[in-house]
Amino acid sequence: MKIGFLGLGNMGGPMALNLLKAGHQLSVFDLVAASVKHLVEAGASAVGSPAEMAKGDCEVIITMLPASQHVKAVYLGEDGLLAHVKAGVLLIDSSTIDPISAREVAGAAVKHGNPMLDAPVSGGTGGAAAGTLTFMIGGEQADFDRAQPILAAMGKNIVYCGGAGNGQVAKVANNMLLGISMIGAAEAMNLGVSLGMDAKVLAGIINTSSGRCWSTDTYNPFPGVIETAPASRGYTGGFGTDLMLKDLGLATEAAKQARQPVMLGAAAQQIYQTFSQQGNGGLDFSAIIKLYSKQEG
Amino acid sequence: MKIGFLGLGNMGGPMALNLLKAGHQLSVFDLVAASVKHLVEAGASAVGSPAEMAKGDCEVIITMLPASQHVKAVYLGEDGLLAHVKAGVLLIDSSTIDPISAREVAGAAVKHGNPMLDAPVSGGTGGAAAGTLTFMIGGEQADFDRAQPILAAMGKNIVYCGGAGNGQVAKVANNMLLGISMIGAAEAMNLGVSLGMDAKVLAGIINTSSGRCWSTDTYNPFPGVIETAPASRGYTGGFGTDLMLKDLGLATEAAKQARQPVMLGAAAQQIYQTFSQQGNGGLDFSAIIKLYSKQEG
Amino acid sequence: MKIGFLGLGNMGGPMALNLLKAGHQLSVFDLVAASVKHLVEAGASAVGSPAEMAKGDCEVIITMLPASQHVKAVYLGEDGLLAHVKAGVLLIDSSTIDPISAREVAGAAVKHGNPMLDAPVSGGTGGAAAGTLTFMIGGEQADFDRAQPILAAMGKNIVYCGGAGNGQVAKVANNMLLGISMIGAAEAMNLGVSLGMDAKVLAGIINTSSGRCWSTDTYNPFPGVIETAPASRGYTGGFGTDLMLKDLGLATEAAKQARQPVMLGAAAQQIYQTFSQQGNGGLDFSAIIKLYSKQEG
Amino acid sequence: MKIGFLGLGNMGGPMALNLLKAGHQLSVFDLVAASVKHLVEAGASAVGSPAEMAKGDCEVIITMLPASQHVKAVYLGEDGLLAHVKAGVLLIDSSTIDPISAREVAGAAVKHGNPMLDAPVSGGTGGAAAGTLTFMIGGEQADFDRAQPILAAMGKNIVYCGGAGNGQVAKVANNMLLGISMIGAAEAMNLGVSLGMDAKVLAGIINTSSGRCWSTDTYNPFPGVIETAPASRGYTGGFGTDLMLKDLGLATEAAKQARQPVMLGAAAQQIYQTFSQQGNGGLDFSAIIKLYSKQEG
Repeated sequence: MKIGFLGLGNMGGPMALNLLKAGHQLSVFDLVAASVKHLVEAGASAVGSPAEMAKGDCEVIITMLPASQHVKAVYLGEDGLLAHVKAGVLLIDSSTIDPISAREVAGAAVKHGNPMLDAPVSGGTGGAAAGTLTFMIGGEQADFDRAQPILAAMGKNIVYCGGAGNGQVAKVANNMLLGISMIGAAEAMNLGVSLGMDAKVLAGIINTSSGRCWSTDTYNPFPGVIETAPASRGYTGGFGTDLMLKDLGLATEAAKQARQPVMLGAAAQQIYQTFSQQGNGGLDFSAIIKLYSKQEG
Repeated sequence: MKIGFLGLGNMGGPMALNLLKAGHQLSVFDLVAASVKHLVEAGASAVGSPAEMAKGDCEVIITMLPASQHVKAVYLGEDGLLAHVKAGVLLIDSSTIDPISAREVAGAAVKHGNPMLDAPVSGGTGGAAAGTLTFMIGGEQADFDRAQPILAAMGKNIVYCGGAGNGQVAKVANNMLLGISMIGAAEAMNLGVSLGMDAKVLAGIINTSSGRCWSTDTYNPFPGVIETAPASRGYTGGFGTDLMLKDLGLATEAAKQARQPVMLGAAAQQIYQTFSQQGNGGLDFSAIIKLYSKQEG
Repeated sequence: MKIGFLGLGNMGGPMALNLLKAGHQLSVFDLVAASVKHLVEAGASAVGSPAEMAKGDCEVIITMLPASQHVKAVYLGEDGLLAHVKAGVLLIDSSTIDPISAREVAGAAVKHGNPMLDAPVSGGTGGAAAGTLTFMIGGEQADFDRAQPILAAMGKNIVYCGGAGNGQVAKVANNMLLGISMIGAAEAMNLGVSLGMDAKVLAGIINTSSGRCWSTDTYNPFPGVIETAPASRGYTGGFGTDLMLKDLGLATEAAKQARQPVMLGAAAQQIYQTFSQQGNGGLDFSAIIKLYSKQEG
Repeated sequence: MKIGFLGLGNMGGPMALNLLKAGHQLSVFDLVAASVKHLVEAGASAVGSPAEMAKGDCEVIITMLPASQHVKAVYLGEDGLLAHVKAGVLLIDSSTIDPISAREVAGAAVKHGNPMLDAPVSGGTGGAAAGTLTFMIGGEQADFDRAQPILAAMGKNIVYCGGAGNGQVAKVANNMLLGISMIGAAEAMNLGVSLGMDAKVLAGIINTSSGRCWSTDTYNPFPGVIETAPASRGYTGGFGTDLMLKDLGLATEAAKQARQPVMLGAAAQQIYQTFSQQGNGGLDFSAIIKLYSKQEG
């Protein structure tokens, strides 16, 4: 299939490579020349602008951009995709942005005659490279069915979440809960250990009890409890604190627009912000347990 | 075996019954005559005071009391258990109290020549009746081994947590995390639904993603998502808000003594307190989602 | 002086009237015809659009709009003020918006040859009618000096806060602290009274001690403590909960952009949001004390 | 007058000295010999135990102790004050403890025939030395009138707060609000400065606006804003973070017993606890602003 891919960063780059490997013809664009070069060497053809991509003969265009202002600019800008793309081309935005903006862009696309899906992912750069991402999809069921085999080249779980924007809703809701659970796990583990318990014994009990969560049984923030977790390798790799902070920012913004209180969600955002301001934004988000640990004098 | 059982309330009553059913000889005490009568009719013999029980020939004495002041009074009071009990009798306290008090009482017992275990339970009145409680045990390993077959008549999981007080530590740490996760689940579910998602679809996604926790996959607070959860029967039964509030009070108190910050733990305590003050202390704790729901005018 | 006034709502309407009373010639615009009519009857002349106002001969144009998207549209829109206004005309935006947006608009104005001030107010509709508002001004000192006599017709305190956007910074910082202090006052008053103290005695002690703040000595949230405060008249009038919520939304948004943690500011936002969601958004913000009060069964 | 003084630490020592200077005869006790020696050199006579003091001929006994367990031991212990003191001797406890314990001790005293006042102070060691403390008094009005001239030798403001325990209530309520306001002030000042405002200009605006509080106009946490505040001398002296933490612990404990939510009070406690755990417990509590400041790499 002829596919356009716009945004070849840490996530978009390996995702595009997996599409090439699956045998698709790829037309790519990014502002960073080196990123484009890497894909061209792997067999993609480069275009000079979103407008040029839109004017081409892609059947599907996928975008992977940092934030909602970039998504709006690329789709809705004067010389953007919607100004030039043929009706019927399927548009898929894999950026993580707020649901309201996602719906605004999807509405404009549909009005222009283009089916559109929001398709944010989870799984990190590791999942992007391995083609094991989870896609959370919002849009029409028929468009989801059409996109499914394409996305399957890049991900393992392709989940339909309902109408436009719902992919983003699912992602911010899940990640807000994740951000809260991880801090809760850090507090519970540190409390138990400071009161004299062995960390592995405590984790074992929690993991067979009602406190059980992904943050304790799969990604425990206490060093040494789970050998494969970032906590056991100095909090390197994984899902960075500043990325969690971005997602919590989207969640509280969406909550504000929906006039929905999220007391722990907002508290979690501020706690990670405090930790990031102390210079830890690049560590895996489970490193938040360090904010709760006694500092050596 | 000859066992004394002190405290025959909502939890202690059915636990004592299960010991009788297992063939043990039971000597019981409670301030409430009706509670004693119920056990006597089932085959137990009644004593008139903790002192009388201590002076008897029980090999093991089990206590199940509301709070640390009762535990201290019964064990350490002028006419309490330790003033009269023979050395060597195994003492098991199943009350949920703060770890510091548990260690204080255990220390006094050991000094007096009595092995002691703290053995708080989870599983609620349903688990007490069915004999499926989880016991979290702190104390010496040898005493744990001795107690294990007795406790097995009342519970399904008998978990050794390490030295004295560690049963209480495990319980407050687990329940603090549970209290936080449930509020996080309530916020995430309500945020997603208020942004237009179907509750069951959202729960399905979270339960296969990193936000997964017992509060979403087993005890989801959104009505109708899990048919067997209290949320699907008007938040009746289950684990009451005021009981969760008690456990969070123990957790933050223990954290204060350990000089350990628990930001979300303390926030959770205040959120349940707000909900309880609005008259909802008797509802299952997952009803906290109602604090986050739009009130009809 | 010939002045344009754009935005004649609850605040803008009475402010414009005070300019008329001070002898200025007024050209006005609003989307709501009744608001315009009211001003025209008082002596103003109406124009049909921002563009028409910009093309006229106003020496100064003042805007008073609900939110940053309106400010951006009116100033930066294709047919907005900056597309048509003569260089040198002084632009004053009295809307309360986030500092970043204020700086963006001011930057565009200056580039276009127009001095611009951000001039948000405090004092409410009462202060707008009485001409006793406080203006917090960001921009060049010389432009502040030029604006000062005009603003003096509408306000009592005209405070220079430094460069562009600083009027907005001062307002969000002050109002965030106000929102926090009021909740703190509500908690302290309710705690003291629930522990048996007389509310007036407690307020008297706090007001001569280190807990003293505007929220206790001038605007105490406990009914009956200060006769002139909204608390003593059913929380009517004053500064609405939803307006406080808007300002806290601006504060936490600005903090997010500055990567600055505001833990209590974010908590305050969520607490007012909870109260608003329960149907109390129209009450004075000091009514937040009701969220902390026992509900009658 | 013949006065007994029990507890000669950082606060009690200088307070006792001021009683001597005012011409009273002083009988003193402390576990630390050096503290007693200092007072004896200044003219006091030493006794060997609380019991000996109680058996003596003091007309008034004043206690100044670290925490409620010490107060209970000294008053209610087997060999404590109430076991030996003559009926009619006025008892004054200046310790800062929780209101419930204060009422328990006062109730026992009254039952024994001794009028008792709770009389916690604010003003710190500086105020204790200068004789300018504020006393917050709970108990009978007649006893307050009797104590007033004695306390006037140690303090400037002697405030009657109502029945037994109300002195403690007033202190915890005031200090909880203080702890909240100071964090609010820290967040507002840091937010404003990080957004580009001058700290002194911002403080000036807040101090004439609705955000005004003792923490901004008298004790501003931003360095250089108020020359006499601890912030302008490296956060030395003043009121230590760990003392604020103790008072917030009393406030949240009292709130728990009263079933009264204190969301920001509990958040403040955790924030100071986090700061203390990072090694800053000895700094003045206004140093909390450092938790909100960017750390140098």
